[in-house]
Amino acid sequence: MKVDSVPYRTIWLADDGWAVEIIDQTRLPFDFVTVRLETVEDAAIAIKDMLVRGAPLIGATAAYGMALAMQADASDENLGNAYEKLLATRPTAVNLRWALDEMMRLLEPLSENERSTAAYKRAADICDEDVDICSSIGDHGLRVIQDLSAKKGPGETVNILTHCNAGWLATVDWGTALAPIYKAFDAGVPVHVWVDETRPRNQGASLTAWELGRHGVPLTVIADNAGGHLMQEGRVDMCITGTDRTTAAGDVCNKIGTYLKALAADDNNVPFYVALPSPTIDWTIEDGRDIPIEERAAEEVTRIQGKTETGDVVTVEIVPEGAKGGNPAFDVTPARLVTGLITERGICDASKEGLAELFPEKG
Amino acid sequence: MKVDSVPYRTIWLADDGWAVEIIDQTRLPFDFVTVRLETVEDAAIAIKDMLVRGAPLIGATAAYGMALAMQADASDENLGNAYEKLLATRPTAVNLRWALDEMMRLLEPLSENERSTAAYKRAADICDEDVDICSSIGDHGLRVIQDLSAKKGPGETVNILTHCNAGWLATVDWGTALAPIYKAFDAGVPVHVWVDETRPRNQGASLTAWELGRHGVPLTVIADNAGGHLMQEGRVDMCITGTDRTTAAGDVCNKIGTYLKALAADDNNVPFYVALPSPTIDWTIEDGRDIPIEERAAEEVTRIQGKTETGDVVTVEIVPEGAKGGNPAFDVTPARLVTGLITERGICDASKEGLAELFPEKG
Repeated sequence: MKVDSVPYRTIWLADDGWAVEIIDQTRLPFDFVTVRLETVEDAAIAIKDMLVRGAPLIGATAAYGMALAMQADASDENLGNAYEKLLATRPTAVNLRWALDEMMRLLEPLSENERSTAAYKRAADICDEDVDICSSIGDHGLRVIQDLSAKKGPGETVNILTHCNAGWLATVDWGTALAPIYKAFDAGVPVHVWVDETRPRNQGASLTAWELGRHGVPLTVIADNAGGHLMQEGRVDMCITGTDRTTAAGDVCNKIGTYLKALAADDNNVPFYVALPSPTIDWTIEDGRDIPIEERAAEEVTRIQGKTETGDVVTVEIVPEGAKGGNPAFDVTPARLVTGLITERGICDASKEGLAELFPEKG
Repeated sequence: MKVDSVPYRTIWLADDGWAVEIIDQTRLPFDFVTVRLETVEDAAIAIKDMLVRGAPLIGATAAYGMALAMQADASDENLGNAYEKLLATRPTAVNLRWALDEMMRLLEPLSENERSTAAYKRAADICDEDVDICSSIGDHGLRVIQDLSAKKGPGETVNILTHCNAGWLATVDWGTALAPIYKAFDAGVPVHVWVDETRPRNQGASLTAWELGRHGVPLTVIADNAGGHLMQEGRVDMCITGTDRTTAAGDVCNKIGTYLKALAADDNNVPFYVALPSPTIDWTIEDGRDIPIEERAAEEVTRIQGKTETGDVVTVEIVPEGAKGGNPAFDVTPARLVTGLITERGICDASKEGLAELFPEKG
């Protein structure tokens, strides 16, 4: 999408044709900085330290990480090491495993001198496929927004609440949850987005607010606590979030706090949609309660990053000295609270039957 | 309660017998500083700028504000002005009006030279009455915690989730929601508190974590987003919050985000209690949706206060430049989601009938 009128993707090949460039998302929303990745270690660190985040972008970065590894040393041993190193970076991300398995399947049978070229080609294709998938999600979701808009008076705004960042910054382009919003905005449908701050890492207040704002979409940042009240007051027409992992029965594992918004949407008859590329569906699990939840460092809760009046970006402590913090990073929204799953193939019920209809080959 | 073994109240008469002292709660949790109030303006600013907060403490401070006004000028005109000035500070706080009406009723019929003494006496009584009320709430709530503890194995911890700060810092002593927890802790019941950070003003991460920790109660600070997941995992035995205003039918207007926790508690069969001194019941309203919700400054969402590594307390911006923020300060939890109201007279159903049984004189 656009950053001050210039089109960007989140990952691209450098001009030299072998290194990979990304946006350092930990520097957003204060600084727009790109970073050059030259080794598989660079790629692993970029994923682990969340310079890149979001299921599809993690997958794309892992794919390019394999390419960087093959460029340096295309031996079987290095192939196996690169796979293990990248897989260990984020245990919850099913896309990560998908992309790595995909690369492994392709590269393992090849001879050493074929591997590098094939890896770069496949990584580029994975990126392009992701852009196509997200664009399709956007097209399907656009119709939901257009339907809501049609029920309103002419020129009346459709108010959409989103949690965390499932925008183009989380993918290669377009985003998942935000793709329908960008499509609607670009099509001239009046939209306004309630952006959940999304503590503890504040991906909403920093990333979602940044990317929507830079593209020109009207938004208001709210505390994670506010969404329920706004729904009670009829000020939310729909909710839409992404997902890190969706079960075969439609349970949704997404950023911590998603479940609370889904409960409020259900209690107030607000449609709650989840947008997802099909690679994030885990066909091996039905019950979301079987998904292991990553517990991240307490410092993410007890400290926060911001910009001082003098323009310095600093981390400040927000709890009393010595206070303990707890930090489960995801929660599971049961399928019963989800109005529909928006995939690249269309929209379906959040259920085994709904998903099976769209993806019969997985049955 | 105790601050590092020294017993404190939140408001007290200075040694000179006429000025009033408070804890500047905006400086917590980083600095423990007391402030001297000498005029009704000082009292009004203390309430408006939230140096004191919490329904009962706001009422007590307003009562002492009237006393300070009478000490300076006991005329009818100044009495009326003081009432108006103090009433305008926080529109949602029903205790504020209650305390001011109480003072007005007492002072208006008196002659000018009787007013100051009577005002100080009544303000002190209002404080003592609040301590008695909170202590009784603690005793009634203690039994709920003891019952939960009895159902567990010996020595097993009762995990209690609370939102915002309804502790002794919000009252004169003991607190409302935290009173049962202090009573349980002092009685040797093993308790642990999940402290909701409570964005945007972070009263949980700053005040609740500070006061529980200084008294010695085990706690973990969590993002507001985390409570639903913890309940899904069976790691919360009960929720307890305070309330700024409770309707005659048991709807609860409390800090923004309370409603979301009540929904999660309901969805996971976790008991959800609300602790309240009866003066916070608004007998004139039944439907919580009729309560006006204060919209506070957007800067509370877009900025946050914390302590840098070098020990400076600074305010940092956490959104992209120019991003708009929305800040509804309260929400309404419908009575159907509340397991019980814990009052100074006992515990009742959150319903018109339940409240009428405990407070028959209001019927």
